[in-house]
Amino acid sequence: MTFQYKNVYLENTSTIAGPYEKKGPLAKYFDIVFDDLYYGEKSWEKAEAKILEDALQLLLQKSRTKKEDVDLVISGDLMNQITPSCYSNLKYHLPFLGIYSACATCVEGLIIASNFIDGKKIRRAIVSTSSHNMSSEKQFRNPTEYGAPKPKTATFTATGGAAFLLSNQKSSVRIESATLGRINDLEQTDPLHMGSVMAPAAADTIYQHLTDLGRDPSYYDLILTGDLGLYGKEILMDYMKEEYHINIGEHYNDCGIMLYDLENQKECLAGGSGPVCSALVNAGMIYDYLKTGKFKRVLWVATGALFSPTMVYQHENILSIAHAISLEVVE
Amino acid sequence: MTFQYKNVYLENTSTIAGPYEKKGPLAKYFDIVFDDLYYGEKSWEKAEAKILEDALQLLLQKSRTKKEDVDLVISGDLMNQITPSCYSNLKYHLPFLGIYSACATCVEGLIIASNFIDGKKIRRAIVSTSSHNMSSEKQFRNPTEYGAPKPKTATFTATGGAAFLLSNQKSSVRIESATLGRINDLEQTDPLHMGSVMAPAAADTIYQHLTDLGRDPSYYDLILTGDLGLYGKEILMDYMKEEYHINIGEHYNDCGIMLYDLENQKECLAGGSGPVCSALVNAGMIYDYLKTGKFKRVLWVATGALFSPTMVYQHENILSIAHAISLEVVE
Repeated sequence: MTFQYKNVYLENTSTIAGPYEKKGPLAKYFDIVFDDLYYGEKSWEKAEAKILEDALQLLLQKSRTKKEDVDLVISGDLMNQITPSCYSNLKYHLPFLGIYSACATCVEGLIIASNFIDGKKIRRAIVSTSSHNMSSEKQFRNPTEYGAPKPKTATFTATGGAAFLLSNQKSSVRIESATLGRINDLEQTDPLHMGSVMAPAAADTIYQHLTDLGRDPSYYDLILTGDLGLYGKEILMDYMKEEYHINIGEHYNDCGIMLYDLENQKECLAGGSGPVCSALVNAGMIYDYLKTGKFKRVLWVATGALFSPTMVYQHENILSIAHAISLEVVE
Repeated sequence: MTFQYKNVYLENTSTIAGPYEKKGPLAKYFDIVFDDLYYGEKSWEKAEAKILEDALQLLLQKSRTKKEDVDLVISGDLMNQITPSCYSNLKYHLPFLGIYSACATCVEGLIIASNFIDGKKIRRAIVSTSSHNMSSEKQFRNPTEYGAPKPKTATFTATGGAAFLLSNQKSSVRIESATLGRINDLEQTDPLHMGSVMAPAAADTIYQHLTDLGRDPSYYDLILTGDLGLYGKEILMDYMKEEYHINIGEHYNDCGIMLYDLENQKECLAGGSGPVCSALVNAGMIYDYLKTGKFKRVLWVATGALFSPTMVYQHENILSIAHAISLEVVE
């Protein structure tokens, strides 16, 4: 399902990133970086909620926007019952939509907001997401065996919060189109190789997007998946070639790889993951590149592994989904 | 945030309900009822996913609709990472939006779908939800102390699946308007008294809805909260009177109370809860009453406790939200 928009603009973004992201090559594009994974709070979960709350406040400040001028907030994250999203939104008391699409959550939110704005249902929305390396490790890998080695195919959940202000008022970057993904099952069962789980979902959505709009990969300065990591990236390129006879190699990169210096940050294994990973890359570097004219068109394909410890324990396959939006410079 | 719609119709519904709901007074309005809480599956989680999958299939059959004629599915439930929603949608391979708003999930989905249809972004969508008494008990009350008595204020998670087919094609019932709720914190901390947690959220949304549209409660044949239970219902009526000077008593009932025969089904305590509770009542009895002209206008106010065991263990308050849609007979 592909949508095209006439009047949906990206008015501003805000980004807050943690200590691992601070050491990565994109640090200079983040508004705020911090060192303490507790972020001054008493638990990782409360830290994640506070990071997201601060990202919302920063977005309003940067945009010189009062909360009364925002029609709704859409937010989601990885935590059970999306608690960081709920708690972070409390003090704004704005109409709220909670969403969940694993690491594809942020783009799902951007698509909902874009459809509302382009359909003239609202004028302005905030879309936000967060993840936290430790709150995720605690929730998804519980009981964690400390010191247990992970395979090099495993990804590393990014820590931070990101928020996007969308509007019907003209600005320099717009959301030009979007493709809603479908749930895929390639019978993958390894939660330590999410790249292989999610690559087919990314391929399905990229193919659908290009086909629906009659485009080829060269239409975009960059097609960005988020977040397949080193091995998933290779799988996606192969899969696109073999399944769809499309070579995306020249125009393609992955947010999970870009977020860290993987040569030196060995702890990040195959690359970043978590919903904030591709959100930080796009709200940070990509938004900067579009505003300054280094890029004209970018396709952001957020990938999500619909992964639940409960279903993995019950030997079910890990499902996946990918949602895409096209960001374009306004001429 | 209140929306009004011109061309959003409720084309059909489907309902599958479990053994406790089968014993309740609304059983005759459900398409399928069953006795075995495992629903022929090996776990409660898999049972919940299968119930929801069957509800989707039943909806397509009842509506004589091919899956290709549906533009997207929106679904959410109470399970961590909304696994029943994800697994139930696998075989349809349709564009998918995952949502979470606790027991207000279904109305959140109906509002997103209505905005997409009324904004001419899609023609047809399925909105679905599920809950399962045992999968919820296992997840939210773990470790469950078997035999531990619950207070009479506790609610009882309903078991079943419900799906709604929305369309831009005229039919006998339409979605006339909707109000998106905001996150509330009344400093409640007792997960065994959700009615007190959610009543203020329901009041906030009902007041907002009536004010935005210049209506009073008598505009509706029935205002239906889902699901405050016996004690929450009283709190809401008092709260509406004291806070907003509005008497909703004559036009008001609660889905959690209606779903069971609480005089005889003592195990259901203060009444039903879970996202499928108000979905079953509205997709079943209310849809029948509207189609047969017994009601002309109903306001369905779905209430959600944004409740996470993690945050309760950390002594955080339980937050709440309520979303409303108005269902109206097409003259």
